[in-house]
Amino acid sequence: MAYELHYWPTIQGRGEFVRLALEAAHADYIDVARGGAKGQGVTASLRRMSAKDLVQPPFAPPFLVHGKHTIGQTAAILLYLGPRLGLVGKSEASRIWTHQIQLTVTDVVAEVHETHHPIATSLYYEEQKVEAAKRARAFREQRIPKFLNWFNTVLARNPSGPTWLVGARISYADLSLFQLVDGLLYAFPTAAQRALTKTPHVAALHLRVAGHKRLASYLASDRRIAFNEDCIFRRYPELDG
Amino acid sequence: MAYELHYWPTIQGRGEFVRLALEAAHADYIDVARGGAKGQGVTASLRRMSAKDLVQPPFAPPFLVHGKHTIGQTAAILLYLGPRLGLVGKSEASRIWTHQIQLTVTDVVAEVHETHHPIATSLYYEEQKVEAAKRARAFREQRIPKFLNWFNTVLARNPSGPTWLVGARISYADLSLFQLVDGLLYAFPTAAQRALTKTPHVAALHLRVAGHKRLASYLASDRRIAFNEDCIFRRYPELDG
Repeated sequence: MAYELHYWPTIQGRGEFVRLALEAAHADYIDVARGGAKGQGVTASLRRMSAKDLVQPPFAPPFLVHGKHTIGQTAAILLYLGPRLGLVGKSEASRIWTHQIQLTVTDVVAEVHETHHPIATSLYYEEQKVEAAKRARAFREQRIPKFLNWFNTVLARNPSGPTWLVGARISYADLSLFQLVDGLLYAFPTAAQRALTKTPHVAALHLRVAGHKRLASYLASDRRIAFNEDCIFRRYPELDG
Repeated sequence: MAYELHYWPTIQGRGEFVRLALEAAHADYIDVARGGAKGQGVTASLRRMSAKDLVQPPFAPPFLVHGKHTIGQTAAILLYLGPRLGLVGKSEASRIWTHQIQLTVTDVVAEVHETHHPIATSLYYEEQKVEAAKRARAFREQRIPKFLNWFNTVLARNPSGPTWLVGARISYADLSLFQLVDGLLYAFPTAAQRALTKTPHVAALHLRVAGHKRLASYLASDRRIAFNEDCIFRRYPELDG
């Protein structure tokens, strides 16, 4: 039974963390809002989310539909997919640790969004540029180094070596850290590069995942949406430095 | 074996979501940073977190130590504790749904923090008051109603009735929603009351959890730290309305 991913069709956004897991595992999935068939497209996705008979309604996209399950929240989707796609270890300790890393990625992603929307999601960036410049400066100077340093420590202390975040095999947390770094390099090329020179394990992991056979194929395909300024990761040169 | 909770000793903060679960289940636990015995106190907690031989270092407090496990991230701690404390259902579907609700509470808590720190965590509130006033207005007018409305819908659609968020028994998500509402009522009394009049299932759940026998006893004890302006939920009258 194919997985159905529901997410905005023109951005990577939070849905990309789910796409990467599905792609890395070569899973059978439908990116519903991007489809042209009957019952597909963004309107169909949103209608599904707001159906009044949905007993477990997601708060927002992305959400995954699999059989009778409808699951929202990126990290919860990965918690569900991880064991099914072979992208997490078998022990409870390994699963909780992988999830803990994922939740920290989630925290950074939320802070990235705040850099261009520090006042309100309902306003345009242009309406909060002054505050965004201040927020982005603190994010670049304090938060990017602090977060990347933590991920670097996690890699350095992995008893199986610094190849992957957890144990000796790739997990969804590695894919998510790849995506986070990729997004930071897009949105804050100067600040991200600077931080990565001090976090070599993270920089190496980013390249390693990009070179993963299935991922490399996905990243080169037109299934990978290009970064753009409607996404969470936006390249506004005035926010980098 | 007692659970060890490590968190800042003078605030409710994110640690309170863990305390509520431990208290509701009458679990044997030590609030390490608040203890006066040898090996306790906030310095001991922080030393534990930054130990160089810690293979799975938490990013920040709260973290839980249980036997050989050290677990950070509030939602991951609850994912671990839920089955052990009988505060989540047995099926995978029920556990993922409970976690999904918890992650949405996490999102709101992060946004509450942003209302008084929209520019930088490293600055004082007084240094970002102008921006905080704007951010808090958007949070009050748009975000509080939107989030509480979602929780109200979850309760209204629960096939077991609107008593609890998931199924027919209390879960850690109920405790967390209680804490969220309690914090909103402290920080934004006017705005939270206004939203709660339109989300009666949420208002009722808040009272129901407050009346839960073990919780009521905890809330009346000196183990419950009072809300204060070092916490995530801060009462700054100029941010309410």
